[in-house]
Amino acid sequence: MRVLIFGGAGMIGRKLAERLAREGRIGDRTIESLTLYDIAPASPPAGAAMPVMVETGDLPAPGEAARLLAGKPDVVFHLAAIVSGQAEQEFDLGYRINMDGTRAVLEAARAADNCPRVIFASSLAAFGAPLPDPIGDEHIAAPLTSYGTQKAIGELLVSDYTRKGFVDGLALRLPTICVRPGKPNAAASGFFSAIIREPLAGQEAVLPVSDDVMHWHASPRAAVGFLLHAATLDGERVGPRRAFTLPGVAVTVGGQIEALRKIAGDKVAARIRRAPDPFVQRIIAGWPRRFDTRRALDLGFVAESSFEDIVRVHIEDELGGVMPS
Amino acid sequence: MRVLIFGGAGMIGRKLAERLAREGRIGDRTIESLTLYDIAPASPPAGAAMPVMVETGDLPAPGEAARLLAGKPDVVFHLAAIVSGQAEQEFDLGYRINMDGTRAVLEAARAADNCPRVIFASSLAAFGAPLPDPIGDEHIAAPLTSYGTQKAIGELLVSDYTRKGFVDGLALRLPTICVRPGKPNAAASGFFSAIIREPLAGQEAVLPVSDDVMHWHASPRAAVGFLLHAATLDGERVGPRRAFTLPGVAVTVGGQIEALRKIAGDKVAARIRRAPDPFVQRIIAGWPRRFDTRRALDLGFVAESSFEDIVRVHIEDELGGVMPS
Repeated sequence: MRVLIFGGAGMIGRKLAERLAREGRIGDRTIESLTLYDIAPASPPAGAAMPVMVETGDLPAPGEAARLLAGKPDVVFHLAAIVSGQAEQEFDLGYRINMDGTRAVLEAARAADNCPRVIFASSLAAFGAPLPDPIGDEHIAAPLTSYGTQKAIGELLVSDYTRKGFVDGLALRLPTICVRPGKPNAAASGFFSAIIREPLAGQEAVLPVSDDVMHWHASPRAAVGFLLHAATLDGERVGPRRAFTLPGVAVTVGGQIEALRKIAGDKVAARIRRAPDPFVQRIIAGWPRRFDTRRALDLGFVAESSFEDIVRVHIEDELGGVMPS
Repeated sequence: MRVLIFGGAGMIGRKLAERLAREGRIGDRTIESLTLYDIAPASPPAGAAMPVMVETGDLPAPGEAARLLAGKPDVVFHLAAIVSGQAEQEFDLGYRINMDGTRAVLEAARAADNCPRVIFASSLAAFGAPLPDPIGDEHIAAPLTSYGTQKAIGELLVSDYTRKGFVDGLALRLPTICVRPGKPNAAASGFFSAIIREPLAGQEAVLPVSDDVMHWHASPRAAVGFLLHAATLDGERVGPRRAFTLPGVAVTVGGQIEALRKIAGDKVAARIRRAPDPFVQRIIAGWPRRFDTRRALDLGFVAESSFEDIVRVHIEDELGGVMPS
């Protein structure tokens, strides 16, 4: 099978490409070629058994998606996006990449006429307050950001293009990915990862919200697992509603810290400094807490079962399995 | 105030224009000018107190919406659409008019920079089976047609452009309009109007579904009333979720026929011939039955309170108040 990843240079795209290169197959089908597309060149994974093509360009530009889809890939992972904060500040850019770009991918797949599996990374940002607790799969997508609006539109397009038989699409609302590797970033959600990542790296992390804030998490490894599972799923089983929320771990910040303490000890957990920030607290107040993901569970998507597992995945995948002190 | 109607040549657009021309005001504000835009020239209402401009063109064409919005209208009614059946058959045309056209209106309003009230006619087609009964305002928009998808996308855009302060928008999910005046049409929903309209005109009507089929109706007069109410509504009261379902009358086909019999007598009601059509029955089976419209009711939207009222409105507005025999 041929695999194409839009957004191949992003954190999840890279991890997905590495796993595909390592395993050489999705389900029982061998990967003949892997194309990594992004605005900047993706690093091809080392030691891949299959040919890996690295492509760059401006996804919504005329002819661009068609150029990539002309090779009739069997599976298209569409992870490319302008992130939430930037889409809010740069309205036109957000719509251009997140809405027009997604439509361009779907239109190009339609033109290629081989009905590929298209897996669109959607977001919990499709939901907006007021929210029930838990949030079920029948709850309205009423986003409160441009990013969430663009993702909700992408979900609608994926379902309609699928219904028409142009693609065999899935729109997966990924949990917040935790622990994100790398540097702290400016995202309002950054602390969810930082309070685990920085103490494990011997550094202080600032916690801007109270310990009782609950949120919905899955590890980067689980996210890659979701994408791979989606690649092999029988579309008939999914039915016409192609967008749904994926399973995750609902945990409070206090629960996150307790998991860190259990695994890494008091000294590591003590590196979290509480510095309440009313600005971040206000943003977080409108965020979802937890979900009823029975559709995804019935379809066989599997997340971690505890936040301790999420911390362990981080230590294994990012710290070489070495428990720091 | 200046008023612009996209879709001014359609059935609701014409009735809205006639009422605006007759009343000369919306709420307590005098209408200084009325522009009717459509793909074909709208008939300007007779005896209008204000200047009425008739404009034609291709709404999503570059610069077209901007040309219309350059006059900085205070209220924009966006009723222009490719209807459900045609949008299903002509995929590209449906997206071009219903999605790109709506985006063009919102972008042009943003560029005009006067934050007009934009009233977008959405549709119950934003919902798709399986559906709860009744359907509340928090139920997911999971359409099963391209038309419904395009309307759901329009709703999302209206809310986001409103949140950003570019427009002060409302997306109104209108009930099925009944009794539609004019000729019978090929729409699957056509019989809901035909079984009232044709018998009152002395003609036979064919009923393709069973008497227990329930649906959600409002008269053309109520639809115009909704649009006018929306024009004066305080956006602050509406909040960030700018799309909601409007009130209507939930009635079975049997109830429709009973209302017709009560008002027009057995002889008229006997002109309905039952000819079950499995094709139409299958389509209708996935349609919504009734709604919990507490948001719209709280905001002061008023529909008819019985299907008898809907029949009376038809007799008054379309038959000159003359009860046929």
